[in-house]
Amino acid sequence: MDQEKIVEESMEKILEYLEQKKYFMARDEMLKFNEADIAEIFEELFDNEDELEKAVVVYRLLPKDVSVEVFSLLPVDDQLKIVEGINPKELNYIVQELDFDDKIDILEELPANIVNSILENTPKEERHLINAFLNYPEDSAGSLMTPEYISLDKDMTVAEAMAHIKKEGMDAETIYTCYVKDTGRKLIGIVSLSTLVISDDNIKIRDLMRSEFVYLNVYDDQEEVAAAFKKYDFLAMPVVDKEGRLVGIITVDDILDVIEEEDTEDIERMAGIVDMADTWDSDYLDISVWEHARNRLPWLLILMVAYIFTGMIVSSFEDKLSQVISLVAYMPMLMGTGGNTGSQASTLIIRGLATGEIELSDAARILWKEARIGVAVGIILSAFNFLRVVFIDGQDVMIAVTICSAMICIVIFAKILGSMIPLIVKKIGLDPALIANPFISSISDAIALTIYFAMASLFLGL
Amino acid sequence: MDQEKIVEESMEKILEYLEQKKYFMARDEMLKFNEADIAEIFEELFDNEDELEKAVVVYRLLPKDVSVEVFSLLPVDDQLKIVEGINPKELNYIVQELDFDDKIDILEELPANIVNSILENTPKEERHLINAFLNYPEDSAGSLMTPEYISLDKDMTVAEAMAHIKKEGMDAETIYTCYVKDTGRKLIGIVSLSTLVISDDNIKIRDLMRSEFVYLNVYDDQEEVAAAFKKYDFLAMPVVDKEGRLVGIITVDDILDVIEEEDTEDIERMAGIVDMADTWDSDYLDISVWEHARNRLPWLLILMVAYIFTGMIVSSFEDKLSQVISLVAYMPMLMGTGGNTGSQASTLIIRGLATGEIELSDAARILWKEARIGVAVGIILSAFNFLRVVFIDGQDVMIAVTICSAMICIVIFAKILGSMIPLIVKKIGLDPALIANPFISSISDAIALTIYFAMASLFLGL
Repeated sequence: MDQEKIVEESMEKILEYLEQKKYFMARDEMLKFNEADIAEIFEELFDNEDELEKAVVVYRLLPKDVSVEVFSLLPVDDQLKIVEGINPKELNYIVQELDFDDKIDILEELPANIVNSILENTPKEERHLINAFLNYPEDSAGSLMTPEYISLDKDMTVAEAMAHIKKEGMDAETIYTCYVKDTGRKLIGIVSLSTLVISDDNIKIRDLMRSEFVYLNVYDDQEEVAAAFKKYDFLAMPVVDKEGRLVGIITVDDILDVIEEEDTEDIERMAGIVDMADTWDSDYLDISVWEHARNRLPWLLILMVAYIFTGMIVSSFEDKLSQVISLVAYMPMLMGTGGNTGSQASTLIIRGLATGEIELSDAARILWKEARIGVAVGIILSAFNFLRVVFIDGQDVMIAVTICSAMICIVIFAKILGSMIPLIVKKIGLDPALIANPFISSISDAIALTIYFAMASLFLGL
Repeated sequence: MDQEKIVEESMEKILEYLEQKKYFMARDEMLKFNEADIAEIFEELFDNEDELEKAVVVYRLLPKDVSVEVFSLLPVDDQLKIVEGINPKELNYIVQELDFDDKIDILEELPANIVNSILENTPKEERHLINAFLNYPEDSAGSLMTPEYISLDKDMTVAEAMAHIKKEGMDAETIYTCYVKDTGRKLIGIVSLSTLVISDDNIKIRDLMRSEFVYLNVYDDQEEVAAAFKKYDFLAMPVVDKEGRLVGIITVDDILDVIEEEDTEDIERMAGIVDMADTWDSDYLDISVWEHARNRLPWLLILMVAYIFTGMIVSSFEDKLSQVISLVAYMPMLMGTGGNTGSQASTLIIRGLATGEIELSDAARILWKEARIGVAVGIILSAFNFLRVVFIDGQDVMIAVTICSAMICIVIFAKILGSMIPLIVKKIGLDPALIANPFISSISDAIALTIYFAMASLFLGL
């Protein structure tokens, strides 16, 4: 996209205008762009503490509709920076104008006193709705949905339906699927705008609507919601409560962010980072040193305990090691290879479980596959090592045999361990990504040493 | 979603019907569901070699429109299994009926002789278009787009435009944005269906259309395409060629799969798995043992070379180690901790670069942040270890000092290394995920040992 480059060029101009306090010119430069680009410009400006105040001045100069749209596109951190820099009247205006789902998102983050003063300015009916939405658990379908959708009556004609839509005149993404409810607010059918557009004016909605449709429950986890969108390729999906009543819809544009968020969560968990400091929604650079440390320490400390056992394994073999001290030089390689082959396997299985490619019922087939992969990989790595140990290092052949037979066993064990642990964790009902790769590495370290020393006893008579 | 459970229950019935060769009953059971669910049922049936033939029999009994839709929703592997089981006439029907982008996808996978016989049955004009599309590089915007979109004339009225759309009567996801071209096929504006629906009949398109719009280039990488969709929240985006002529559009439903694919690629690369065997699009279980081994071996072999250096570092210290053999017991912990803290940092940076949260220009701030995180984490882990080494292991205080001072230095080094290497790789223009975490671990292993032995010389006078 050329767009990126153009924005970057303007960014330089904007920084210069800010430097010279030419706020109106900075604003005009921004207004050449789409709201999403403007939001990105502000994100970058807000990253810099020194520019923050000036950036908020420019933000307040934006046309009102643009300022609302830009606000909705910013990450929470940056939204809060704006909240601090504007007056209550401006804040109230922005919040009232936001789309319903964005409004809920920011209200969840604001301090209670600000929320209350905003709610006082909200019509009673909407206030009840907001309070209901604020109660849905974070990361549930309820927290993603919007109550803004088009309702049609099954006895309307297409012409009447189109007139109704024209009158309601809503946001782009929420208009493309229309919902038909019975008198008890229970969802009975859906009809897409494209069907309406290409159908004759006099056809009744009940003859056009699909009465078999897929819906989400209000307490579904956002991961399930994303999976449903990936599977069915819908632009929007209806959300119903326990009684089957339609309470809102979720649109696909919000799902792109959910997928990115869920994948980020999995990737970071796999690397042994947990969200202790509750910094999930924040950018890397906005998280403080201490919060970063808190997110990284738990696994490192747990692994410290695991290393006590590894240490004990080595200590118990200490006397024998000192007899053939050259064995120590191969410990890093054997441990490292075990860890790496193990996490290759665990990564594939964890990702396969996340995308639905792999199911728990595949366990036996995976075990058989990884065992054979372990044999193939182990033999090749061993052959390579035999040559190295004998010809490069000039060691005794029996030492090479010890190392190579240990290598084969370690790789097979690590592959089996790496592939089975995620399945076991999933079976227990936990997120497989939570049992991080560092944990699998450290178990395979202990196994690697045990195997290595056993082989040394066997082949070198220690 | 309750849907999942219902499908699973039906799956059992279907398997029973297949067992008893009641193919029509199996089909009727399937037809209770949405095409996406039916595709999932076939995916599961095709996984089992013994069921394959029977499953294809049922597939052939599906109503024609359902069979085409189901085909388009299956992964390539399973599509090819169907191709092998049906006759050329059936195949030709399916391919001709597929949406244009799905048609291109399957033609790319079929053997040349089958492609040719299908193209013979294709009208000349479409044949040219297919050939043009087949030439776009894999993973480019060109390979994701469809040439099926609504073109409007800028001098049409809303009423005329709506009549035109009704006449063209296209697929749901391609109808929601309409495109306005000048006489040279250059894109001059876009207008959404929702705007048309809520506007008065007599307004001219030129007064409604947005003439500032975001577009993609036909050779943009699919990763950039996905980023653009995430940023702008559009349902569809236009794709233009070098001359700015509109050649197709990309719809958001295809982007969900791209995001999943790109994230999977990053996750696997970070774990040291490369796509040597060209098995990217295949499910874990469909990849053979040997192909799996080929994807995993390159990094393992490269790391073998790295371990030669690690071995040399240990060997050079061998004599001194044999004097204080208890130092060996702490090697696994120091190496492991270095590797783990390093890959925590690299994972955060690689992911941040992928989502756009982090840019190259942030390098200095990241360095400063990671150095401080390293100090905090290093001190806490050291304190923990001091207690362990002195009170649990009963070692000399100087040994504890050696281990703890090494620990602090190793953690700081690993954090800096882990965060800077991805930035350097990105700067060179490569995918940061390609420098896998195992590589960062093995470098930090070597550094950990060097630091450890240096501290031992310093504090223990070795």
